[in-house]
Amino acid sequence: MARTLFASLFLFLVLGLVAGQGDDTDGPDAESLASLDRTATRRYGDGEDLLHLLGQTGQHRTAMTKPNVILLLADDMGVGDLSVYGHPTQEPGFIDQMANQGLRFTQGYSGDSVCTPSRSAIVTGRQPIRTGVYGEERIFLPWTTTGLPLYEVTIAEAMKGAGYTTGMVGKWHLGINENSSSDGAHLPANRGFDFVGHNLPFGNSWRCDDTGLHQDFPDTNACFLYYNSTSVAQPFQHKGLTQLLRDDTVGFIEDNVNKPFFMYVSFAHMHTSLFSSDDFSCTSRRGRYGDNLREMDQAIEQIVTTLVDNDIDDNTVIFFTSDHGPHREYCGEGGDANVFRGGKGQSWEGGHRIPYIVYWPGTISPGVSHEIVTSMDIIATAVNLGGSQLPTDRIYDGKCLKSVLLEGASSPHDDFFYYCKDTLMAVRVGKYKAHFKTQTDSSQMKLGERCDGGFPLDDYFLCSDCEGDCVTEHNPPIMFDLEKDPGENYPLGPCGYEHVLLHVKDAIARHDAEMVIGTPVLDNFDFSIIPCCNPETNCVCNYTHEPGVAECYQDLINIALRNGVPK
Amino acid sequence: MARTLFASLFLFLVLGLVAGQGDDTDGPDAESLASLDRTATRRYGDGEDLLHLLGQTGQHRTAMTKPNVILLLADDMGVGDLSVYGHPTQEPGFIDQMANQGLRFTQGYSGDSVCTPSRSAIVTGRQPIRTGVYGEERIFLPWTTTGLPLYEVTIAEAMKGAGYTTGMVGKWHLGINENSSSDGAHLPANRGFDFVGHNLPFGNSWRCDDTGLHQDFPDTNACFLYYNSTSVAQPFQHKGLTQLLRDDTVGFIEDNVNKPFFMYVSFAHMHTSLFSSDDFSCTSRRGRYGDNLREMDQAIEQIVTTLVDNDIDDNTVIFFTSDHGPHREYCGEGGDANVFRGGKGQSWEGGHRIPYIVYWPGTISPGVSHEIVTSMDIIATAVNLGGSQLPTDRIYDGKCLKSVLLEGASSPHDDFFYYCKDTLMAVRVGKYKAHFKTQTDSSQMKLGERCDGGFPLDDYFLCSDCEGDCVTEHNPPIMFDLEKDPGENYPLGPCGYEHVLLHVKDAIARHDAEMVIGTPVLDNFDFSIIPCCNPETNCVCNYTHEPGVAECYQDLINIALRNGVPK
Repeated sequence: MARTLFASLFLFLVLGLVAGQGDDTDGPDAESLASLDRTATRRYGDGEDLLHLLGQTGQHRTAMTKPNVILLLADDMGVGDLSVYGHPTQEPGFIDQMANQGLRFTQGYSGDSVCTPSRSAIVTGRQPIRTGVYGEERIFLPWTTTGLPLYEVTIAEAMKGAGYTTGMVGKWHLGINENSSSDGAHLPANRGFDFVGHNLPFGNSWRCDDTGLHQDFPDTNACFLYYNSTSVAQPFQHKGLTQLLRDDTVGFIEDNVNKPFFMYVSFAHMHTSLFSSDDFSCTSRRGRYGDNLREMDQAIEQIVTTLVDNDIDDNTVIFFTSDHGPHREYCGEGGDANVFRGGKGQSWEGGHRIPYIVYWPGTISPGVSHEIVTSMDIIATAVNLGGSQLPTDRIYDGKCLKSVLLEGASSPHDDFFYYCKDTLMAVRVGKYKAHFKTQTDSSQMKLGERCDGGFPLDDYFLCSDCEGDCVTEHNPPIMFDLEKDPGENYPLGPCGYEHVLLHVKDAIARHDAEMVIGTPVLDNFDFSIIPCCNPETNCVCNYTHEPGVAECYQDLINIALRNGVPK
Repeated sequence: MARTLFASLFLFLVLGLVAGQGDDTDGPDAESLASLDRTATRRYGDGEDLLHLLGQTGQHRTAMTKPNVILLLADDMGVGDLSVYGHPTQEPGFIDQMANQGLRFTQGYSGDSVCTPSRSAIVTGRQPIRTGVYGEERIFLPWTTTGLPLYEVTIAEAMKGAGYTTGMVGKWHLGINENSSSDGAHLPANRGFDFVGHNLPFGNSWRCDDTGLHQDFPDTNACFLYYNSTSVAQPFQHKGLTQLLRDDTVGFIEDNVNKPFFMYVSFAHMHTSLFSSDDFSCTSRRGRYGDNLREMDQAIEQIVTTLVDNDIDDNTVIFFTSDHGPHREYCGEGGDANVFRGGKGQSWEGGHRIPYIVYWPGTISPGVSHEIVTSMDIIATAVNLGGSQLPTDRIYDGKCLKSVLLEGASSPHDDFFYYCKDTLMAVRVGKYKAHFKTQTDSSQMKLGERCDGGFPLDDYFLCSDCEGDCVTEHNPPIMFDLEKDPGENYPLGPCGYEHVLLHVKDAIARHDAEMVIGTPVLDNFDFSIIPCCNPETNCVCNYTHEPGVAECYQDLINIALRNGVPK
């Protein structure tokens, strides 16, 4: 803990100075940052005194009246990565405990298989084809002039409408600027979030990794850390980031103990490049991936501890999930998908299946559920629990899960549509899935050919295209029984399943009948809007590098050196 | 329940008559079978009255003094088949509850990857190469004149030596006859078991399946149900078998409430052919495999309920495991191995990794353990807990796990040796595994080519050989880091791991130095000793066929018909 706090303190001080120097209006000044940091220091030191000083105990709301909602989102984490989801070497941690004391879903689905569209689906409750979050590109780039369309109601806007105070930290990836490199038109502060702490408007990437293990660093075009709508570091050091997100979240919770809040905590873990503070390096038998997961796990534990300390844990419903499946091409540095086929970028189950845990002690009974749920359901559920409702002028793919969570009701979903951009790749109807197009996938072993001892040589996808050479069309579609064959290994025979195909066609017909396709927003570019803190320094500002990779990763260092990565 | 009891009653009455007609000396007569059945009926009807009548409450032994030991063994069940081990569609059941309230090991190993040698390893605590349980064949056949060598001390013999009453039911597969078709020289009654209920001296096989879904039935050469050392049905109907094993076990427990007992419950589940009583058909969303697992699960729950009802649950340690990995060539009818590669018959992790749960309420703290444990450790642990010790004149591969179970100590295993017959295929040293020979494996998808909609067309192995065309030699060995890469996907690079190879060579040198190779016992044949209840009826006796496959398996019936399997 001591080292974490020290690193955190160091980074806070640096960032505090930075923020004080900037021209931001939304960001905190040096004093408030330093104050926040002192709070954080005391929070884990003499928490009771702090609570006493703040006078926050004994004033919490009646349970069940507008419960707080916290959405914890992992990045690129596969459905098979947690111990409780069957991973054989990952240590069980606090998330596993939440799963055991909450409801663990085995059929959780993401709205897309890559970051931007899957996140837009979470934030809006609607599939990307409806919201227009597709295009020639599959994600928002730092030079995309568009963002999540304003017509869309974000989960933050909806929760504000329900009387909640809203906050977010971490990865956004739903748009940055529109007309200039600093207008922040599409940033979360403009999409309903009252509080926005440290955040990554774009995300994490190999190009931001300063350990020397990967190529291309620093690419300041992709690497900037914000506080609210202001850049506070470019590029940014990954180490210490999770502690910033944690402390911002803890501060937000403590500031809102007496009123209903919604908090979106969007971790940079488990996206590559992997990173963790020194306290976590070399602590997992699973290696770096495990170290990263443990760091995120501890941050979550500390967030939940804050709820307990403030006696609001039983009035807070927590969703834990991932944006989509694991980036398996990263081999040992990527996640696992258990028995599922494929991964990030693909319409095989491995691309869409996600860990999905809902934790609400005293209200949701512990258990395992096989009901189909999607990350698009979170907004509908949260708004409903908050006593409000979503707009009725548009189709929502997400459904309210209240009765599933509280009464063990059946899923509201009879079907699920797997899109890649605006291409319908596959449809699930009941337990059957029909693929109209499939992407080339490969056994992990084959992927291993691009991995030296499990360490990826480059940053690539085998096939995340929606059409073209690596995509095979199927007419009639190939079909699988996902309950008997979750791994999509055994196509159903040509005969005997005609009735299933009819159901699939019916489902598509209903889906098409109510489909209003959004105008694509991912292909509008202007390189002049890329965030740049200072052109005179080649967009490098307040970058602090604590040198080196933990010694225990010597094997990775050796591989990087063998492959000519500059140190 | 009603239907189960009815089926059970029906089978009991039939078998009771059979047993009464036979020339057995060890088996129960019709009256005792009928009595047992009445007991079973009342057990789940008005259990409290029954307990009162039996006067068994309040007389149990002091906890921790010679705890009872129950070994629950599944057949061909993969490490990924239970919900608690991550299976996405298998319903959580009582075994999962035991896992959550007991200690669940993520690194459980079987002593071999096929039935006979892995079972010999469990029963003796020694690797098959030491006990001689290898040969040109890999298993005991009904015409093998040898059995598990008498020099070996079985877990039953050892527990008897520790003052325990011993019992077993279910699959044996460690030898049958020696000189005649009825001498039963190698049967469990001659290997230390005081009580032997319904048992399969050989096992379950497609050739015993009477549903019409598979070919070759009836092959009476492989299909016979015994009670103690006497054949009570040939061939036998699978349906109802699990209830027989359960009721025998419940009866044994109730007969021994006041003295320490060891009970070996060796299920025919999850070996193919799959079967279940009507109560379980079509109850699992996973299909037949799930139905089978649920049937075994309920039997286990009822066994444990008997312990609770007799107030001896906290004085009984229960091991649940499988003999080895899943037979993946059976596709949807075979089990799952989570992220592990390969399966039954192979030295990849999928062949050796097993579910491994130890349940001892009040004594073993609930948790998940990553310590290496093997099914050979059960005998050493059980004997130690019973206050006795194993012979010191031989090497035991199994180690006592008492401190691992009770104090969270580290594993006593630094290494593990993967044999195929007497061939050393691979060695694990610490977290590294070195393969000297590997068997051709395949993705499930490829296996799917021999599966019509997930239903296997034939009874085969892709490669379970130890040498020959499908086996590749590696010199130097290919190595994997099993903690970072449990799926054995990413071979470690040629450089940087020289020290690991030295450790591997050291481990092998130590292993070889203490190795006394057993004389192979699997290749001695005499077809005249095959059990045959009556040559005049072509060895068909007391076979009762409740016709048909459950209607809900219509898809399987259709596939079988397509493939010309006689109905």
